[in-house]
Amino acid sequence: MKSHISLQEAIEILNNNTHSLEVEEIDLIKGINRTIATNIYSTINNPPFNKSAMDGYAIIAKDTMDANIKFKVIDKIYAGQGSRKIVTNSTAIKIMTGSPIPNGANAVIKQEDVVIDGEYIKINKIIKSNENVCAEGEDIKIGDTLVKKNKKLNYADIGIIASSGINKIKVYKNPSLAFISTGDEVLDIDDNLTYGKIYNSNKYSILGRIQELGYEVNHVEHANDNSKSIGELIKSLAKDTDLIITTGGASVGEKDLIKEAIDSAGGEKLFWKVMIKPGSAVLCSKINNTIVISLSGNPAAALTTFELLVRTTLEKISGQENIEIKREKAILLGTLNKENPQTRFLRGKTVYEDGKQYAEITQIKSGNGMLSSTIDSNCLIEVEKGSKGVEEGSLINIIKF
Amino acid sequence: MKSHISLQEAIEILNNNTHSLEVEEIDLIKGINRTIATNIYSTINNPPFNKSAMDGYAIIAKDTMDANIKFKVIDKIYAGQGSRKIVTNSTAIKIMTGSPIPNGANAVIKQEDVVIDGEYIKINKIIKSNENVCAEGEDIKIGDTLVKKNKKLNYADIGIIASSGINKIKVYKNPSLAFISTGDEVLDIDDNLTYGKIYNSNKYSILGRIQELGYEVNHVEHANDNSKSIGELIKSLAKDTDLIITTGGASVGEKDLIKEAIDSAGGEKLFWKVMIKPGSAVLCSKINNTIVISLSGNPAAALTTFELLVRTTLEKISGQENIEIKREKAILLGTLNKENPQTRFLRGKTVYEDGKQYAEITQIKSGNGMLSSTIDSNCLIEVEKGSKGVEEGSLINIIKF
Repeated sequence: MKSHISLQEAIEILNNNTHSLEVEEIDLIKGINRTIATNIYSTINNPPFNKSAMDGYAIIAKDTMDANIKFKVIDKIYAGQGSRKIVTNSTAIKIMTGSPIPNGANAVIKQEDVVIDGEYIKINKIIKSNENVCAEGEDIKIGDTLVKKNKKLNYADIGIIASSGINKIKVYKNPSLAFISTGDEVLDIDDNLTYGKIYNSNKYSILGRIQELGYEVNHVEHANDNSKSIGELIKSLAKDTDLIITTGGASVGEKDLIKEAIDSAGGEKLFWKVMIKPGSAVLCSKINNTIVISLSGNPAAALTTFELLVRTTLEKISGQENIEIKREKAILLGTLNKENPQTRFLRGKTVYEDGKQYAEITQIKSGNGMLSSTIDSNCLIEVEKGSKGVEEGSLINIIKF
Repeated sequence: MKSHISLQEAIEILNNNTHSLEVEEIDLIKGINRTIATNIYSTINNPPFNKSAMDGYAIIAKDTMDANIKFKVIDKIYAGQGSRKIVTNSTAIKIMTGSPIPNGANAVIKQEDVVIDGEYIKINKIIKSNENVCAEGEDIKIGDTLVKKNKKLNYADIGIIASSGINKIKVYKNPSLAFISTGDEVLDIDDNLTYGKIYNSNKYSILGRIQELGYEVNHVEHANDNSKSIGELIKSLAKDTDLIITTGGASVGEKDLIKEAIDSAGGEKLFWKVMIKPGSAVLCSKINNTIVISLSGNPAAALTTFELLVRTTLEKISGQENIEIKREKAILLGTLNKENPQTRFLRGKTVYEDGKQYAEITQIKSGNGMLSSTIDSNCLIEVEKGSKGVEEGSLINIIKF
């Protein structure tokens, strides 16, 4: 087992030990936040026919060159209908928005631009051919790529797939997830706080974060500090779970609970300790194809490592091609005076002004256990290893939630 | 009824005609994306006791000034436990991370920094008082504000409320929502496309978007172009629905379906037509306390007006204080040559480079019906009324999805 490795190395090891889940077919309506497993091409032209963009009259455009012409209205077309009649010189068909342009016609004159005279209309405006006509396929052509493979679907993707009349899509299966908090000192929030105990905030923040990311947790457990029983729990959950997240017991010296638990579950330890702060105490293991990511019990540490390793692993097993941390550059608001022997992550908040992306440090107190640092933050600020501090106005990396 | 009003005026009318829903108590675990109805204060100090940040030995710090001192180890404390013994000069209690500091001790020496000699330990390092001790309340003090009223809760909020052992929270009720698509030309995606018909992409993109925003739609209907039956449907849905969204029938001249439907449902029309492009054809109405927002049937128009009026109204009725469009400044990538007699919205995508926020125009084709413009977009670019175009590099307003 590798230990005390860099964040990049941790990502590579996880990348080499994970693969996307199987593909399943689902109803399009259930596709939000799922990752598509195939390219999706349009099966039709869109619009599927030349259609009227306005309420008005379908005519032959060049007839409007003659100001004295009267057009006989020979039919009426509502949306969803058609007309068997053909528009010829000096005839018009009344047409509603969205209706198919009748044969013979090549333009639509807006209702407001005509004068009605019994069965006839008069037009005192010259229009061009194709005016107020949405041409067949002008939006999307048959065969156009609508969505590319491996994309996590958003509402616009769902809408554009629907426009082609595709009601079943192939997506990667949703991972089956388990969450285990550990620690004799950890109480659930409906218990009374007794001396030496703390409340289980990790369970709530991590389950909440998983929900925000669009996943579901199938098993939620709390285990006391007994490596054998934790091991049995992990072994049993691993049978039908793709990813197990544990908190606590990862930094404990004498007890070394989680490492022993993984051994007793017959798991393979992939790496232990990543050279970042907070969150260095993380153990990643594998039991058959199930990945186990064991986070620190300290909230700030657990939530940082969750973003860096768990979120990215979740994205890969649910269909992204690679495990990848998405960094952006921002301008630092505030100053960091601390030396950073290891890569350090602080909580921050993005601020936009005059087209610039700033990151404000929201974390006043530092420390692995500091939960107050999460208040009002929406990103991690990454401070490079070896840096002696960062001045206000410097460009830094941020990782958005 | 006001008509042809500005976007700002539309927002004000909606603001004056909406209020937040009632408050209900829910389990904290169900709080993601819900808007909190009270300030939440910490009911405890966090940590709730002086706790050890390390595995090591609790001692009196100044004893380490004497290099020859041997400490007798008199007890051992695991997390979740305490010790009845008192640390005095030259004694130590073995302590695990997260355990309460025993009486008498004021620091913890790390396990790695001691040499064990039977029942004794030797320390060749001077430590300060409070070293490796997380003091009671150093993260959060009793009475500290954890979350402010009217905030939409994210995972960090849920976690920090949990840290105080609060398991029930008061939130604004989730709105009850209905979606009605209209149009004789509109087919659902499992139908076969026949001449003059189009697929109902609006249903899928709007339901998808509502899901992304964390809301649920309680009723989904499709209605044919008959104002009386649409009116009956709206009237019946309004009885137990806070917001009804309709698509189609809002721009039709001769038929004027939705306006007639609102009349026949006994509704009050608040405004019709907003001076924006696309999406000008929007009707907002009220039936008792139910808001009805009737969007155009054209996809690009419907989705633009959804972001500007429906999303913001949803946020208010589910607990935000005001209806508000959240604009940010971005630097335009690409050039706009078109004149803009009305405020215009284009689809764009944010790009971050060197601490700058750019917005790239993703929309190649323009037009109310253009669904392809939604591909890969994540924001709306707002072009001011009266502008004769926008040069590359200009600062423009964007509205992020």
